[in-house]
Order: sequence, then C-alpha cells, then structure tokens
Amino acid sequence: MPGNSRAAGTHHSRPSSSEEPPDLEDQELLLAAAYVSDAQYNRNVPFETSPQAIRLYHFYNHWTMRAATYFFIWVNLALALFEEPAVFPLPFLVTSIAEVLCLTAFFGRLVHFAKVTPQKVFWKDTKNICVMVTIVLTLIDLVIYGSLEAVNIRGVRWSRALRPVFLINFPESRQIRRTFRSIRNTLPDILYVFLLFLFSMMIFSLMALKLFGDRDLRTVEGSPYFTNILDIAFELYVLVTTANSPDVMMPAYELNWWYSLYFITYIIINTYIFMSVFLAVIYNNYRKHLKNEIHTLAYLKHHKMTEAFNILKVKVGTEFVVKEARWRRLVKVVAPDVSSSHLELLLRISDEGQKGHVDKVNFLRLADLLNIRVVAINIKKHPLETWMPRVYQSSTSLLVQKMVQHRIFVWVYDVIILINAIFIALDEKDSLISYAEWLFLSLYIIEILLKLYTYEPSAYFGRKQFWNWFDTLIIIAALLATVANTTIQARKYNSQQVLDIVLILRILRLLRVIVSIQRFRVIVTTLINIGPTMLTFGGLVLVVYYAFAIIGMEVFHGKIHFLDPGSGSPDALVCGNPALKDSAFAQGRYCKNNFNDLASSLILLTELTVVNQWHILADGFALVTHQAAKLYFIGFHVVVVILIVNIFIAFILEAFFVAYSLEKSEVETAIEKKIQELGVGVQEEEVQDGGLIDNMDAKDSGFSPDEGDNKKKDLKGLYFRIASKKYKTVDTLLQQMFESEIAPEGKDPSLKEILSFSPKKVNFDNSA
Amino acid sequence: MPGNSRAAGTHHSRPSSSEEPPDLEDQELLLAAAYVSDAQYNRNVPFETSPQAIRLYHFYNHWTMRAATYFFIWVNLALALFEEPAVFPLPFLVTSIAEVLCLTAFFGRLVHFAKVTPQKVFWKDTKNICVMVTIVLTLIDLVIYGSLEAVNIRGVRWSRALRPVFLINFPESRQIRRTFRSIRNTLPDILYVFLLFLFSMMIFSLMALKLFGDRDLRTVEGSPYFTNILDIAFELYVLVTTANSPDVMMPAYELNWWYSLYFITYIIINTYIFMSVFLAVIYNNYRKHLKNEIHTLAYLKHHKMTEAFNILKVKVGTEFVVKEARWRRLVKVVAPDVSSSHLELLLRISDEGQKGHVDKVNFLRLADLLNIRVVAINIKKHPLETWMPRVYQSSTSLLVQKMVQHRIFVWVYDVIILINAIFIALDEKDSLISYAEWLFLSLYIIEILLKLYTYEPSAYFGRKQFWNWFDTLIIIAALLATVANTTIQARKYNSQQVLDIVLILRILRLLRVIVSIQRFRVIVTTLINIGPTMLTFGGLVLVVYYAFAIIGMEVFHGKIHFLDPGSGSPDALVCGNPALKDSAFAQGRYCKNNFNDLASSLILLTELTVVNQWHILADGFALVTHQAAKLYFIGFHVVVVILIVNIFIAFILEAFFVAYSLEKSEVETAIEKKIQELGVGVQEEEVQDGGLIDNMDAKDSGFSPDEGDNKKKDLKGLYFRIASKKYKTVDTLLQQMFESEIAPEGKDPSLKEILSFSPKKVNFDNSA
Repeated sequence: MPGNSRAAGTHHSRPSSSEEPPDLEDQELLLAAAYVSDAQYNRNVPFETSPQAIRLYHFYNHWTMRAATYFFIWVNLALALFEEPAVFPLPFLVTSIAEVLCLTAFFGRLVHFAKVTPQKVFWKDTKNICVMVTIVLTLIDLVIYGSLEAVNIRGVRWSRALRPVFLINFPESRQIRRTFRSIRNTLPDILYVFLLFLFSMMIFSLMALKLFGDRDLRTVEGSPYFTNILDIAFELYVLVTTANSPDVMMPAYELNWWYSLYFITYIIINTYIFMSVFLAVIYNNYRKHLKNEIHTLAYLKHHKMTEAFNILKVKVGTEFVVKEARWRRLVKVVAPDVSSSHLELLLRISDEGQKGHVDKVNFLRLADLLNIRVVAINIKKHPLETWMPRVYQSSTSLLVQKMVQHRIFVWVYDVIILINAIFIALDEKDSLISYAEWLFLSLYIIEILLKLYTYEPSAYFGRKQFWNWFDTLIIIAALLATVANTTIQARKYNSQQVLDIVLILRILRLLRVIVSIQRFRVIVTTLINIGPTMLTFGGLVLVVYYAFAIIGMEVFHGKIHFLDPGSGSPDALVCGNPALKDSAFAQGRYCKNNFNDLASSLILLTELTVVNQWHILADGFALVTHQAAKLYFIGFHVVVVILIVNIFIAFILEAFFVAYSLEKSEVETAIEKKIQELGVGVQEEEVQDGGLIDNMDAKDSGFSPDEGDNKKKDLKGLYFRIASKKYKTVDTLLQQMFESEIAPEGKDPSLKEILSFSPKKVNFDNSA
Repeated sequence: MPGNSRAAGTHHSRPSSSEEPPDLEDQELLLAAAYVSDAQYNRNVPFETSPQAIRLYHFYNHWTMRAATYFFIWVNLALALFEEPAVFPLPFLVTSIAEVLCLTAFFGRLVHFAKVTPQKVFWKDTKNICVMVTIVLTLIDLVIYGSLEAVNIRGVRWSRALRPVFLINFPESRQIRRTFRSIRNTLPDILYVFLLFLFSMMIFSLMALKLFGDRDLRTVEGSPYFTNILDIAFELYVLVTTANSPDVMMPAYELNWWYSLYFITYIIINTYIFMSVFLAVIYNNYRKHLKNEIHTLAYLKHHKMTEAFNILKVKVGTEFVVKEARWRRLVKVVAPDVSSSHLELLLRISDEGQKGHVDKVNFLRLADLLNIRVVAINIKKHPLETWMPRVYQSSTSLLVQKMVQHRIFVWVYDVIILINAIFIALDEKDSLISYAEWLFLSLYIIEILLKLYTYEPSAYFGRKQFWNWFDTLIIIAALLATVANTTIQARKYNSQQVLDIVLILRILRLLRVIVSIQRFRVIVTTLINIGPTMLTFGGLVLVVYYAFAIIGMEVFHGKIHFLDPGSGSPDALVCGNPALKDSAFAQGRYCKNNFNDLASSLILLTELTVVNQWHILADGFALVTHQAAKLYFIGFHVVVVILIVNIFIAFILEAFFVAYSLEKSEVETAIEKKIQELGVGVQEEEVQDGGLIDNMDAKDSGFSPDEGDNKKKDLKGLYFRIASKKYKTVDTLLQQMFESEIAPEGKDPSLKEILSFSPKKVNFDNSA
C-alpha cells in the first residue's frame, strides 16, 4: 500500500517460495495481478475488490470455462445439421432439448459474468442485453414451434438465424466484434456511395430503356431484350458483378458497334470505379476505426498498469517503486508457467541497475514483456558424437555431413521431386511406375535419415522448426498412403473416401519443393503470419453465411431437387420442378445447388460469393418461388461481396503491410539488448535458416527452480532469442503498428482523460 | 553573380519595365530561370550555358512543340484504323507516307533534344535509344512489307505493335513511364508469388486428374471431364478468374457432395488468397517505388533551386540574398502570365521583412510558390442592385431572394426531378407526357433565372464554380435535346445517332440531383480529384491494349466473321467458320467479338478485361486457329487483369487516401497566412459552399501593371484564396504526401549526395 515502505531483504528472498511475505496482503497481490492480466490480454472487465470476487473473476477467465462456452456455442450452431431440413435428421424433441441445454449454459455464463461485474456496467453492455434477448426469443420460438408441431402445423424456426449472436457476443470473439463494429461504422459512408451508385444505375437503366426498348431485340435465348425497367435494372446490377458480361451487350452490339460504348462506359463507371471506391472507403474506414480502438486499448492498458502499480508501490528514496520480491510473486501469479530463467531475464530488464526494485516506467512495461515470447535455447552435441566420437568424426562421416549441408544436395532432391511429379501424372497401372513409387519414397526417407545424421535430432525437431516438421510429416503421410494403397490394391478393398485421401496425401508430398526454395518459404511464412487474421475473418464469414443459410433453408427448402439424371426421369432435367422447364438453371444442370440442407446451402452460398453465374441461380430460385426472391440474392451480394469481401481484402492488405513493414517494437528491442548484454543471445538469422541449425535445441524451461542467489551461473550455457513475428497474435501486431502514436511514457492519463479522449470508444462494455 | 553586391534602389524600380538593369546579365537570368522552371515542373534536362543553347532549350519546352509531338504520336497510333484490317481502308501508300512523316517528326524532336543535352547524358538515356531503335525497326518493317506487297505477298506488319513506344518514351509521359517502371520493379517480387501460384495450380491439377480422371464423368456439354492434365490446368486457371464457376464443379459435386470441398479449397487458396497477395505485393511495391522517386525528385528540385540561387545571389551584410528587382524579373521570365497582384503577393510572402531582398530559404520555395494557384476574387454588387436599387431591395424582391436561398427551394426541385424521372420512364408517345416535358424544362429554366436574380451572375458563373456550370450546361443540353426531338418528330427525320444522343441528353438532366445533395457532391468532387490520376492510367491501358490489339489482328484477323443472322445463311450460326460448329462461342452468338478491325479488337479486349466468359472467347479462337492461341488470352489476362487492374486499384486506393488525408502543405499554409495577415482572405468554406456565394467574382488578373510604389492600396478591394485541391496535378499531390520525410530545409545536399542517396534513381535520363 502507498506509504508502506518497509525495506525487505529482497536479494535473499526465494522467489519460488510459497510462504506469504509479511509485507503484502494476498488480496492486494491478487487484485494487482488481475489488473496486470487484464492489461496483458486487453480485457476490460472491472471488478470488485473482495477476495471472493477476485477468485470468481479468475475462475470466470479460466480456460476450462471458456472452452466449455465455445463447446456449447458450436453445439448450438451445429444443431442446424440435425433439424429439418437436415443432413442427419433427429426428432424435434432431441434437438430442442439440446438447444435448451445450450441456452442454459449461455445463461449460466452470463450470470457468472454479472457476478464479477458491477451492476451498472453489466446492464449498460449491449453484448449482455443482446445475449439475453436472443435467449428469450429462442425460447419463445421453441415453444411456439413445439406447440404447432404438436398439432401437426409446420412453423418457421426463425430464431435459428439468431444463433450466431452467441458467437459474436461472447467476450472472446473480440476480433469478430471489432470487424462488425468496423462495418457498422463504415455504413454511413458506404450508404451514400451506394445511393449514388444506385442513382447512376437508374440513369443507365432509363437510357437503356429509351435506347433499346423499342428496337424489338432478342437475347440469345429468344426472350425480349431490355423492355422492362425492372428487368433492365437487374441485368445492369448483374453486369456490375460482371456475371453476364458480354452476353448482355451482344444483341445491342450486333445492331450497331457504337452501342458497345454505352456498356463500356457503364462498366468503367460502375464496375471499376464504384467498386474501387467501395474498397477505398471500406479500407479507409477500417484503418481509421482500427487505429482508434487500438489507441484506446493502449490507453486502457496504461491505466490498468498504473492502478496495479499504485497498489503495490512503496517509497524508496524520492520515488515510488515495487520491490523485487513482490514483483516476482506478481509475475508468478499472472503467468504461472513462466520458466525461472525467463523470470530472471525479465527481472534483469525491469530492474536495470540491479537495485532490488522496479521503478514505475519499467513496471508499466510488464504486460508487454509478458506478451513477448522468449525462447531459451540449449546448445547440444549430436548424440552420435557423444556415443562414438571416433566414428562420427571420421573423414567419411564428415564427408557425408558436408555433402548433406551442400546446396547441390537440395537441388538433387528438387529434381527428384519433379521427376516424381511426372510419374504421378502418368498412369499408375503400369507396374514399373508403381515400383518407382517405392523408389521415390525410399529416397525421401534416406534424405531425412541423412539430415538426422548431420544435424542434432532434438534441434532438428525443435519446437519452432516448422519446416522440418512439415517436411517429415509429409513424408510420413506419403509413406502411410503408399502402404495403404498397396494394401487396398491387394485386398480389393474399395472405400472411395479412403482411396481419395490416399491419393491426395501422395500428391501433397510435392509440397516439399516449397521447403527447399528459399523465396517460396518466405512467401508461405508471410501467409502463415496472416493465418490468425484470416481465421478471425473465417468466423465473420461463418456468422453471415449461417444466418443467410438458415433464411435460405426456410424460404427455398424443397423447391428444387437433385434427381439422378441416370434415372431417365423427365423430372430430373427440370430439377423436379416443372417451373424450371427451359430455364438456364436446369440447362446448366444446377439442380444440386439447392437449400435442402445446411451443407448444400453453405456450398451454394460459396458459389454466390464467387459471383459467376449467380444471376442464373437467382433466376432459378425466382422461377420456383417468386420474382421477389431475387432480393435475397441481391442482398447476399451486397452484404458478402461488396462489404465482406472488401473488408477481407482490406484485412489482407493491412496484414501484409504490417508483416512487411514491422520493425521490432521498443519493448522487444529492450529485451533483445539485454539478452545481448548478458551474452546469451543467438542471431535470429542463424536460427531461421531452417534445417541448418547446428546442435541447437529450443526449449522453454531449462532451469531447476532453486537457482537462488547465483543467477549468473545459471544463465550460462543457455541462449535466448525472441520468438519470431509469426507466433504473435493479430492484436499484438496491430498494437505495435500504432504504438508510435501513443503518448510518451511517464504521463499517466487518468481514466477520465481516457474517456474524454475518445468518448464513444471507451465504453467499457463494447470495446471489450 | 557572387560578390557582385552593388545595392540597387529596389523600392523605386518598376517591376514591369523591360530595360535591362546593369547588375545582371541576360544570360545568367535566363539560366537561373531555366533552373527554376525545371524545378517547378520536375524536369531533369541538363543544358549548356550558352545563350543560344538556353533559347533552344526554352523552345524545346515550348507548348507548341509539345503539342506538335503529341499530334504526331496520335496520328501514328491512329494509322491502325486505316491499315488492313481497317475500319476505314486506305491504300498502303497513303498510310506508309503518313507513318514516314510521323517518324521524321519524332526524329526531329530527338535531334532537338540532343542539341540541348550534353552528348554523354543523351546517349546514356534508354528513352532516346528506345525511340531511335523503334524508328529504325519501323523503317525496316515498312520497307520489307512494301516490297512484299509489290510482289503481292502479304507480310506481317509486326512493327505496329511498337507504336506505343513513342507515347511512353517522350518526356511528357512521365506518369505512364513511372507506372511502367513501378511494374518493372515489382516483377521480381510478383514472379515468385506467380511461380508459387503455378505450383499450387499444378498440385491441384494432379489431384484433379487422380480424383476425377478415371470416373468417366461428363460435362454439361457431354465432353469428357478432367481427363487430360493440360485441359485440367486450363480449367483451373479459368476457375481462378471465376469465369467457369460453378459449372466446372457440378459434375464432381453431383457425384458426391464432398468433392465440392476440393473446389472450395482451391478457390479460397488460389482465387481469394493468391489474388489478394498479388494486390498486396503490387500495392506495397507501388508505394515503395513511388516514394523513392518522389523523394529523389524533391531532392533534385532543392538542388536546382540552390543552383539558381547561387547564380543570382549577392552578399548583403552577412548573408547571401537575391535582390527584389532580380527576383521580379526572374518570376516574369519563368511565369510570364502571372498577374501583378499575384506577383506582389508572392513577393510579400518571400520577402517577409519587406527588406528589399529575398533570402535563401524563401528563394528555394519559389518553385513551390509558383505551383500553387492563387485566385484573386473581386467582390461586386448584383448588377440589378446597381441599376435599380429600389426595385431590387423591395420587400417582394427580398422575399424572392430569401425563398431561392432556402433549403425547401432545393428540395422542391429534387422532387420535381424525381417526378421527371418517372415521366421519362413512361411511354412518351402519349401527348400529355410530351407536354409535361416542356413543363419540366420551363421549371428548370425558371430555377436558373431565379438563381441568377438572387446571386451575382458573374460570380455564379465564376471560373471555379464547377457545379453551377454543370447545372446550367445540363439544362441547356436538355433544352436543345427537347427542341431537336420536336423538330425531328415534326419532320420525320430519322438519323438514329442523332435520336440516340438526344435521348441520352434528355436523361442526363437527372444528374442535377447530384448538385443538390451535398453528400453526393462531395463524393463526385473526390472522384474528380482522382480524375487526372485515372487519365494517366488510361494512357497505360491504351498502350497495352494497342499492342495486344495489333498482335491479335495479325493472328486472328478474318478467322471469324459476323454475318447477319437474319440472312438465314447457315454460316451465320457458326460465324462463317465451320470449325465453330456446336461450340459455346457460336451458341453464345459471339461472332461479333472478333479481331477484324481496331475498334472490334479494342471492344473484345475490354470484354476480356471484364473476365467473364473469357474462356469461351479463348476457346472459340483456339478452335479456328490452334490450341496454342489460348496462350495469347492467358497472357492478356496475366498482364491486364493481374498486373494492370491491380495497379489501377492501388492507384485509386492511394489517390483516395491522399485526397482524404491531405492537409494543406507547409507552403500553402504560409501563403494563406500571408493572405490573412494582409486582410485580403476569403474563408474557403464560404466559397466552396457552391451556389451560395454572394457577390463574389473569381478572377486571376485584376491589376493595372503600374501599381508601382503604392502596393497597399492596390491590394484593397481584392480578395485572394488558394485554389482548392481539386485543381492540383497528381505530381503535386504525391510530392506533398512525402514532403514530411524530406530532409529539413537549410541543408543543401550536393548533387553527389543526391546521387549517392539513391544511385539508381537519379539517373538523369530515366527519372525525367
């Protein structure tokens, strides 16, 4: 507590001891730890200070609770697979019981959250309200549908479209929520561009009506061309998506070549310029809002770390500091699985003068320090060298090692892979070729064995040696596939799925080429960096797809059937619906594209996202229901292709720029400097030059806990390095990106200042 | 000259006098002026210092010479319209004489350039070499083709594809060249991504061959499905462009729904991720190289202004300065059409202390100052107020004025326009509706008259009042169109083109809605800002299209004919080529899409750029020639859609960000500050609030030249403002964007420093 400045003999205190030192109450430490871990993960849940509340809060944040929540969310979403129209039908009673179970779990989670949050804050949070309203609506829907079912009337299960609400609104889906907020904030700007776009479409529609309406032209299918203003507007909207180019232009172009200018002007203005403007507006807003939010989060982090500091500080001389013992216990509470050597390293960075205490500036960095993953590396000898040094160091053995390390070795294997590719392309029924199969496999296995002979095995399969693992796994998969293939052929076993998987595994081995070409590896590494970002994005897409799929299933279910064309039934040619006779939908054999179950719906929505031929699909469904059905497809196009795909592109562009341009952050530089000062560093290049690491072993905890008073010695023989960027979370990358613009350290903004800095953003509830 | 420090009585010197002051030789002034104007336009042509050479140089840069060059470039490009296969055929003799004439003009221009450039620099310049080689190649081609023609053998006019070289390589096409350089510099990065993309395509092709090759599946057209590795690769490449989705998937999907996962995976990886990566790589490189070049240009500007300063400087006290009289004469030489009041304003900004001389820092800004357009505004009374003040100020008159200025007036007219739109959509044969036409027109004319009554006419039609001009021109066009329409209907005149233009003009009047909705106006203004950038881009597209069109015409000319389907000839159904029987090309009635003349070729290339159905077009041309013809179409796709369209998007994104984020530059701020200090400023908002300017008149030269010694008085009654961003060139915008990163002023980098700063870029020849 402030003013509580008893000096403790920090240098002798055993950091790993579990007895309670007299100078700090358990509750205060826990409270400070809660602040620090909140700052570390940028959570924004304020809590009461009773020890019970803090424990409840820690329990709320425990990984098992979160995993359970996610489990129920997925079960709830997956219910659509078992409900009518179902892939695997189950009676309504079963699915409804499962749904009630999920809802109970969500409600429990919400109650738990309410317990650790001040009432006022809880009720202000739109997230909580949303979840509650959705639970109630779902229950109402279940009761109504159940009663109707009891008297054999088929109702509409509309509440199913709301299920993604649970995925969005639980605190862990921050990224998805952020993207949704970004979309919402972009809407006003987009709206006016969209209106102008519609206006331009209207002008062009009127022109088309006047220019072509009275000409009595016919399309290729023989239907009248551009005679009705609504049809024209739809055709021109489709032209924006390019899906009916150049067909829509041909009748007019055949009449006179200069009508093509009308269409080219339209395409330049509406397809190229307006669509680029959409992207530019979305990207611009995306960056702006992202920056704002990250900015606010950074301020909040600073605020929370200051709170934690104020709880733990004691006065030494003229300044307030945190004593080393407290600091150690704090770190142990916040990050229980940090290794002792890592803790020691962090302490050296935070307590630069080795004065036995950590000052404010260094203390505030703690959350960032804990977020940076430091890898400890052990340098080891090759086990063969230890067991039989003579043989391993003999001139033959050294020659083999040199050979394996040579570039020509890599090239030879690249050529082998290419020859292998040609053999795969050839027909495998030839017995010579199936023998060659075995030859290639043994060559690959020899390669792996040679590498293991040359490089230290536990270093070769180190935790971060992504490419070595990749290489080995591919070869093991190929080996299994070939063995399976032979077995299948011998036993005349005929499972199509197994055969297909075996085939794919055998071809995937060609991916080994990526490993050996440095430039390819760089590109793939960058893509892997972007991976988490794209996964977040996958969540967003899933939410939208799910809602559209449920609506589509309610509206279009059972209208179109896929009947085996081999059956010869005339219905098979019109997808079981006479309304489709002579339609482009039936002629294109699109019967399989329907909304008869969740899987088909999702595949159909994917096709609509790809855009091509979407107007034929829309036309088909409009024929079997009503022309207004086209609105569903236009709506999907606007939401998914104009909004979401553009956000995705903005996402990728931004992530790519971040990955390209990011230097090491200030905190990372400090850690690295300290590592170098202590003489325990490894050049990152040496390590990243995959496969060429000589006798190094990356490990995370290499210390016995009782290093006590002789730290120097313990750090010897161990090498540290900062885990490379690819293991960082998106949040860290983004924060780093905007870090430079955040107010200089030393100035403590009060919570009020933060709130006034960006009043809309620091709504504790929404920015969580 | 340095050390030549006679003090001249600057305050009495008449700036507009043409007598030569004794303290400066004509030649030096001209040389300095040449440096300044080079800096102003960022040209990089070094020159000799003899007066004759400088005059020759000024002549070289004269607008008539440049216009003549452009004229010949366009004539040369347009020749393709008249050569076989021609839109308007002319004998070979005529076109070849025209071509030789153009080549002579280009050669003359080159010789002129050589005269004003040191030999060594001239011969190092790849641009000059390029132009010379192209001239020689064209002559050789002409001779060969002519001789073959003489003995009636039809040769290949391959040199025509080289014609865009002249457009690219003349010094004025800097923007196009910059984009080309940016593409060239991006190629290495793109290449590896492209190789990886091809590799991924190969893996997927092999998988498809193994998965579907032996299944005996058939496409909708009944041809075998995925049996040949080359066909598969082509189909998968088409799938990347989305043009054959979902058709390519349907046979496999019908067999088993889980094969759709193969296609979805392929689309996610190759269509979405790889294409986004292409955009990201191109955009990233585009920014990087742009920044580099602009950086270099800014340094060069600084260097040249320093050179000019060194020529003109005299020592006053401890520092070197340029005397006011010299400065005035310099500005008069560099910018002869700058108004005296504008000159006075610039002098006040440059000579802040009114000491009679300009110091170095201020002198170096001269090029920037001259680049900023300052508008002088006269405030005038409404002429009616001058003529009959009583009537104009009467209460009725004031009420009318108030009414016109009211927002409801705008809304009423918006509603009228909407009603008008509905009337246009209705059938106009009804006589009631054609009367309504006249009613609407008169309403619009009344609106304009009322506005002219309320606002001062010469201010309403001021130079920069874009929206007022726009509005009035639209109404005049509509009026003319309606009159023309009535005349035509009365006389039964029947020219289709005239009728079409009249129709379009009548509909375009609906664009008036944009004028009255503020948010729409903002978007359109932003688009107009980007206009020049997009025009540059148009040049780039033209160059690529032209080359591809010429090649296409040589290869595919006459293979496909459009025959009127009404003729009933069976050839019409197969585009005059039996090879197309039953092909999707003929069934889609695509016969009009051919390479039989330049116009058709360009339209076809536009269709290929839009991508949809390009594989059917490619297939058609492959059927009538050879399968290898597909390579032409794939090449076009890679160059235009993957490279150029992505550069276009990068272009638009960047331009949009610049337009969104640009603050006023440092120099503009200085000018504006000075304008405000002198009390002659107008708030920009007042002026930009289009149509509501009250009694203001924007003009550029309002001074009699003899303002002499009483400057203060002359500035009275006149108001200045800085012309808004939309009139800036792309170069200025870009330079401003990177201005902040340029070394602080006061430090003079030597030319050597500049060269070492970015050795590749400051090649005088290429960066010109």
